[in-house]
This record gives sequence, C-alpha cells and structure tokens, in this order.
Amino acid sequence: MRPVRAHRIVGIIGGMGPEATVDLMRRVIAKTPAKDDQDHIHLLVESNPKIPSRTAHLIEESGPDPTPELVRIAENLEKAGADALAMPCNTAHAYATAIRRAVSIPFIDMIAITVAEVAQELPARVGLLASSAVLKTKIFEDAFAAEGIKTVPPKDQAAVMRLIKGVKQGATGDAERRTLSLLAKDLAGEVDALVVACSELSVIADHIVAPFTDSVEVLANHIVHFAGVEIKR
Amino acid sequence: MRPVRAHRIVGIIGGMGPEATVDLMRRVIAKTPAKDDQDHIHLLVESNPKIPSRTAHLIEESGPDPTPELVRIAENLEKAGADALAMPCNTAHAYATAIRRAVSIPFIDMIAITVAEVAQELPARVGLLASSAVLKTKIFEDAFAAEGIKTVPPKDQAAVMRLIKGVKQGATGDAERRTLSLLAKDLAGEVDALVVACSELSVIADHIVAPFTDSVEVLANHIVHFAGVEIKR
Repeated sequence: MRPVRAHRIVGIIGGMGPEATVDLMRRVIAKTPAKDDQDHIHLLVESNPKIPSRTAHLIEESGPDPTPELVRIAENLEKAGADALAMPCNTAHAYATAIRRAVSIPFIDMIAITVAEVAQELPARVGLLASSAVLKTKIFEDAFAAEGIKTVPPKDQAAVMRLIKGVKQGATGDAERRTLSLLAKDLAGEVDALVVACSELSVIADHIVAPFTDSVEVLANHIVHFAGVEIKR
Repeated sequence: MRPVRAHRIVGIIGGMGPEATVDLMRRVIAKTPAKDDQDHIHLLVESNPKIPSRTAHLIEESGPDPTPELVRIAENLEKAGADALAMPCNTAHAYATAIRRAVSIPFIDMIAITVAEVAQELPARVGLLASSAVLKTKIFEDAFAAEGIKTVPPKDQAAVMRLIKGVKQGATGDAERRTLSLLAKDLAGEVDALVVACSELSVIADHIVAPFTDSVEVLANHIVHFAGVEIKR
C-alpha cells in the first residue's frame, strides 16, 4: 500500500451550465499526474442547474435573484469539507462578493485569475468572447481597466449568444466549434489578446486557431495548484 | 420566465475513479432534453478519489476498509438534499449493504438494475468485462445466478486490469479503446450477452462492436428516470 497523499479539497459551485462543470472536472483530472485513484483531487460538486438564470436577472431584469441559492451552495460546500470554492461560470461571478462574504474559505475568482494571467502579456486591447450578461455587468471590463487594458466585445454578439444557448441544449458538435473559431478569428484581428470568457464557449473552444486564454483552463490550473498537486506536463 | 421544473436530486458517491464519475455526469446531461440550464438534472457529487482502494481491501486483503468513508459520503449527500444515491463504481457495490443501511433515501443499485436489464434478453451465459475484485466478490455472478444465468470471465483478465488501471492514469485513447474492443470480441464468442461491468471500461467502451450492456449507461438511464425527466431520444 502506497500512503494516500493528502490534498486540499475544492468545492465547485456548478451546473451553470452542467456541461461546463463537467468540462472543468475533466480538465482537473487531465492535469493531475496519477498512478491510481488516490492521486487524483477530491472535489465536492453541486451541479445545480436550477439556480435562477443569471441572464434573466442581470439583463432582462426579470425572475428571481440567484444570490440566495449561490450563497446556500457555497455554505453547504464549506460545511461538507471544502477548503476553497470555485465556480465555472463567468456570468455568475457578478455575484462573487456575496459568495465571498458567506464563507470563511477562499473563493478562487475565475475573473481575477484570468485577468492576471492575460495582463502578463501586456496587451493594450483584449477581445472578450463572453455572454451578454458578462459584457453588461462589466466584470471583465472593469478588472482589465484596472490593469490599463481595454476590452473589445465580439462583432456579432447575437451569434455568440446562440452558441452559448446551444451548448446548454447539447449542441457541442463540430459545426458549433467551427462557428466559434470563425467568431474568434474575426475578433482576434482587432485585439492583442483573446479571452474565452464564458464556460459554455470553453466546452467548444478547441477549434479556435488564434492564440487565446480560456478562463476555465485558468481555473482548472488554479484548482490543481490549490489542491497541492504539481500539474502534469 | 418559464417556470423551473422541479426534479428530484440525485447524489453521486463518486471518484472511483474520477473519470468514471465525469463519464456518468456526461451521460446524464446528454440524455436530458434541455432548452436551458434549468431543464437539466440537479446532481450532488462527491468525487472523492481518496476513498481507500476497494481492490486492496477485497483482493490483496491489505489496507483500510472503505466502508466508513463510503457511509460518511452517503450520509453527507442525504443531508445536503439528495433524494436518492447512485455510485458509478461496480466494485464499490460490494459495500452497498452498509450504504443502504446508513441512509433513508433509495440507493440506485447499479448491479441490480444492470442484471435486471440483461436478464430480459433471456441469455444462458453472460460475459463480464469487470475488475478482478468484482469477479472475486461474485456480486454480478450471484445476482445473475439468481436469474438462472451463468457468468463467464474474460479470457485475459490481466489485460482487462491493465486497461482499468490505465484509465485511472489518464490512458483513454484510441489504442486502449481498440484493445477493449478486441477483449470484448474474444469474450462475445463464448456467451449470449456481454456486460461492461466496470465504470473505467465504460469510459473507453465506444469502440466495442459486439452488442453489449454498459452498467454506467444503465445507471444514467435510471438517474434520469428517477429525477423525473423523460429521456431524450
């Protein structure tokens, strides 16, 4: 018997959408060097697609506030033993302050760590492939502005929203991947750096040819690092 | 705003291994007809790869008993709001009785539902692509025997174990899928029905040409049904 290496436990506030949560888990597993189950990272995951729509609340200004449900999940994950929290949904980070206040464990902020990573490349203009709610709440725009970086939205935001909605419905095939690749190419020509800033788009981002930073990929790296594991190269 | 359809919540005792847990979640999502996040099924998942090795305990008779940890997880998932439990690890079903006793919610028994489904085809002999621990504990053998069905192990069990171990290490490529397909073909010639009875093998089962029943696929169907969702066709 090899001794079981102790790792820190990460709680995932998930289900926004469920496919994005599975995508994050898959990335964490792939980054973990493992000879057997016990080398892998312990995750506590609430994949809760019933959390009220962030878009309805932020954009349409209709429907219930998701904050109480996000806070309840965060508290439950802390109670269940999580040493930190992560949330594979960029839009839901509009409610990050309430989550942070509700728990005493760290919240690994996907927006902050993505902006920090992109800022290292010293771009003047960053293209954001993001949901309309993310664009409206300016969560990325403000964080990049604090680094002196300007953000640029996609040329065809309606097309981006169709892709996001599609992933939530199971449309994750080659056609969707090609469409995202074209939207990325269009935006890449206008900016110095590109960010996939919606976890639904991360699910179908593998056909993008232009260099880009994926917020879910950055989050997966930070989860593995927080757990205490050296990332597999 | 469309009203959010209430579904029952399923708790997943996972991480054995983590890839198999993600595979089950992916299957549940794919089977759920959804226009938006809220149509998807609410899952509470403890992906806990630190659960003591079932193989070490059952086969090598060394190392700690995983029962206390499995029971703790089951109790926590019930407390967190699960309406039923499921466990995407055939081997761990050797401890199902203790889990069932620890909670007051139903445990969706992957062995029982797989045997029930296969028995409908009225086979005389069923081939089991399973871990050595599953074969040793006779959990499938006994359940099939109760239906008057004889089970047949793989011809090359060492090769099956290498594949299972490989999936836990991230070896899930075409080479592994082809090897499993060949092992399945070898066994299929000797039996009337074939069962993929290890959730690691389920991850790499898509190259198998012979007709087979996959225990994780059966479990995913039952989870979707239990949640109250009509499976997507």
